[in-house]
Amino acid sequence: MDLLILRHGIAEERGTRDNDDERMLTDEGRKKTRRIARRLAELDVKLQIVLTSPLVRAHQTAEILIDEGVAPRLERFAPLAPGGALSDLRVWLEANPELQAVGLVGHQPDLGSWAETLLWGSFRQGFDIKKAGVVRIDLLHPQDQGRLVWFLPPRVLL
Amino acid sequence: MDLLILRHGIAEERGTRDNDDERMLTDEGRKKTRRIARRLAELDVKLQIVLTSPLVRAHQTAEILIDEGVAPRLERFAPLAPGGALSDLRVWLEANPELQAVGLVGHQPDLGSWAETLLWGSFRQGFDIKKAGVVRIDLLHPQDQGRLVWFLPPRVLL
Repeated sequence: MDLLILRHGIAEERGTRDNDDERMLTDEGRKKTRRIARRLAELDVKLQIVLTSPLVRAHQTAEILIDEGVAPRLERFAPLAPGGALSDLRVWLEANPELQAVGLVGHQPDLGSWAETLLWGSFRQGFDIKKAGVVRIDLLHPQDQGRLVWFLPPRVLL
Repeated sequence: MDLLILRHGIAEERGTRDNDDERMLTDEGRKKTRRIARRLAELDVKLQIVLTSPLVRAHQTAEILIDEGVAPRLERFAPLAPGGALSDLRVWLEANPELQAVGLVGHQPDLGSWAETLLWGSFRQGFDIKKAGVVRIDLLHPQDQGRLVWFLPPRVLL
């Protein structure tokens, strides 16, 4: 399975909204995320679905992936909100064995610790994924150890 | 310390030379490696030195990095030949504390297992680094655990 993990793009500063969940992408965040989504499409990334954290800045990021043709649809996935559990993702993937190319849009430090755990089997330090940074993992089975395919800071894709 | 690990470019098929150490980059290998070296220069990669495996295909790859201004000089480093020990690299880095940006050009599977060990402290599966693929690791001290900065397949840089 091709698992493409994308951190949300540059968003409004913490404290801008009463509810942190509602912080939106900035104009710059939207622009850069769109360029990255286009580059992913050029690189032939074709996902069947994008699971996104329900938080606005992640959802907006996922929408840009859909807009740019990287995937045909998105789905809100509550465990991608901050503090969610990787085990819930593994269960979801096992329940959807027909999916071979899945995108995830969420937050740090969770995505970084999920990626590390998928690759290494346990958490040690977590990956430092930049905003709109991409990690791609080849995962034979949701419960197995994956192999790292890409770890891309956004500037390599811009 | 900024450690940039590059696998040699596409080389002549195994068996082309009586001595495997003398296999050279193909025209395609030279061309793609040069494009990748240029892209690294554009991305502001500035190394102080490139250590290279003494094998011809690696040495030629390192020369292209020098040609394209990624580093001012190269040095043959025997432990980068197949079967070399990461501990020898750690000793060399400790003996050269003035160096803060070092390139390594060598071979699979050694580079992949070195990179994994630098990040996680031990070998589990090794990274699958493609020809002319790049791994960048931030290493505070040669004996410490590093952090992954880039894991780039060549096609992202071409």
